Amino acid sequence: MKKVNIKALAKELNLSPATVSKALRDSHEISAATKQRVLEVAKQLNYAPNAYASSLRDRRSRNIAVIIPEVADSFFSIAINGIEAAIEEKDYHVLIYLTHELYAREQAILKDFKSGRVDGVLISVSRETTDGSHISELIAEDVPVVFFDRVLENVEAPKVVTDDFNSGYTGAMHLLDNGCRHIAFLGISNSLSISNNRMAGYQQALKDHHLTVSPDDMITCTPDTAANFTAIKQLLAKENRPDGIVASVENLTNTVYQVCNELQLSIPQDIKVVCFSNLDIAAILHPPLTTITQPAFQIGKAAAELLLKSLGKKDAPSPATQIVIPSELIIRGSSKRS
Amino acid sequence: MKKVNIKALAKELNLSPATVSKALRDSHEISAATKQRVLEVAKQLNYAPNAYASSLRDRRSRNIAVIIPEVADSFFSIAINGIEAAIEEKDYHVLIYLTHELYAREQAILKDFKSGRVDGVLISVSRETTDGSHISELIAEDVPVVFFDRVLENVEAPKVVTDDFNSGYTGAMHLLDNGCRHIAFLGISNSLSISNNRMAGYQQALKDHHLTVSPDDMITCTPDTAANFTAIKQLLAKENRPDGIVASVENLTNTVYQVCNELQLSIPQDIKVVCFSNLDIAAILHPPLTTITQPAFQIGKAAAELLLKSLGKKDAPSPATQIVIPSELIIRGSSKRS
Repeated sequence: MKKVNIKALAKELNLSPATVSKALRDSHEISAATKQRVLEVAKQLNYAPNAYASSLRDRRSRNIAVIIPEVADSFFSIAINGIEAAIEEKDYHVLIYLTHELYAREQAILKDFKSGRVDGVLISVSRETTDGSHISELIAEDVPVVFFDRVLENVEAPKVVTDDFNSGYTGAMHLLDNGCRHIAFLGISNSLSISNNRMAGYQQALKDHHLTVSPDDMITCTPDTAANFTAIKQLLAKENRPDGIVASVENLTNTVYQVCNELQLSIPQDIKVVCFSNLDIAAILHPPLTTITQPAFQIGKAAAELLLKSLGKKDAPSPATQIVIPSELIIRGSSKRS
Repeated sequence: MKKVNIKALAKELNLSPATVSKALRDSHEISAATKQRVLEVAKQLNYAPNAYASSLRDRRSRNIAVIIPEVADSFFSIAINGIEAAIEEKDYHVLIYLTHELYAREQAILKDFKSGRVDGVLISVSRETTDGSHISELIAEDVPVVFFDRVLENVEAPKVVTDDFNSGYTGAMHLLDNGCRHIAFLGISNSLSISNNRMAGYQQALKDHHLTVSPDDMITCTPDTAANFTAIKQLLAKENRPDGIVASVENLTNTVYQVCNELQLSIPQDIKVVCFSNLDIAAILHPPLTTITQPAFQIGKAAAELLLKSLGKKDAPSPATQIVIPSELIIRGSSKRS
């Protein structure tokens, strides 16, 4: 008889793979009746967990994977410190994987984890990622996953984020309070919740000031610095150019400042700038940069703590767990009232 | 009969463990006579390679470890990109491990690699590391190691570095040419070759200008930012304070600028600054920072290419291989002639 995997079993039972997986390992989250039904059908269909998956269930790799888009962003380098602080002395290894913002690479990395390479995964998805099936499949294979910062709302797994909507709102509101009446928003993705939530907060601030939200003022930046430079320059060279910018990621700072320099726009006299950033040298930029600074260390630490609980099984967090740690607006020269 | 390991075998033969290891795997680097002798003694002493080591020789993990002190320094984040560029499509995984500048952590990470977790190692050692026996032992277990940037001179393994002496010399000479007569040097270790070589270059530049090299002007900074702030402030608050600074790592920039700000010293009028840095925002600091910029991407890529060759065995690089890729002085406002 042909052997079936957990996915086929789930289909036959009309349950999610995660539920079947939990039933098979006798999780307290699953009712006795469901467990009974799963075991019966598993027997009928000749279901046998594969060797890799079994070894995985023994939690023997002692590896925890951290999957991030890049390390050049100080948010991620600080978050890693938070993760390692939580995991230290727990006898786990932290392995860092970079997707370089590529969905295909993220898929390839996760696919490999099915063979038992790692016990659990902390992930901040690439800006290309919209479909989370590669993550759901891993969870179905009994590898716990916790999202941090860049989460996929439709994947059932614990999440640790900052208050992206409020942060976008606060950043834009600060510029409005300081006299701006035409604010642009620089995002990094049309699908990432962090970018969309920050943008929604920015839009709400404009609406609260009875200002029009124009699609022309919202740019989606890419990892291509030269292309971003061109797009931002085009925006700021217009006759009716913005007098304020909310930039949603740290690495746009340099491009924004360089464009202003090239166009001979003075910050903050001609244009005010707020940028999401964890760079400690924001204070020594010319002018010093007003930032929305995320609690990067705390986000990493909280995510790692959730994952450790998931590995311990006993008090595993519910997949619906969502921890929100607020960001902070740090006001400096770049947004000063003229 | 008691089994012996490769180390005991090497001792008996009065050869290095690396030589014995190579002889046992029939390396072209070892003479036929030596191979013969090694095989005879191995048989006499009942030497048997352990299972882990055998599995390792099959190169089955397909993992390459990158061991670095931290990711918050842009040199390392860019070097990782170079490493991944070389390794991409070679069907290897790049695992990044952070030592957080701790020797004990570096030892623990490497110890674990003896069990076959990784096929090869790229390492930039912690600032605490002086003894390289943990690395030599790994090499003796037939795990190829390539150093990049922070190397240990006395460990026999291929190395990729920048021209640290010249860079320190060029940085100090640039300040001297622009009028400085009393230059301080901020190092990060008394043992790391990169720090010592950069300092030696700085000292040579002073000597070439017939200036005295004073121990009081050379500070060894630590990972403790607050302590560095205090030490640098003490140095710059002296009556006979330096009129120039060569800082050997990027993350000292913020501290130097903050101290100058607190002491109301203007850069470059009161004090000129050159810093080793790969930060692209050096240009938008206040004032823009003159940097010695390392070829981080190329260093990472060259090191990974050497490691891939070592894994291929056929044209493995000699342990004496040393590739030097020059750094570049990028002159900006912080060192401007007053």
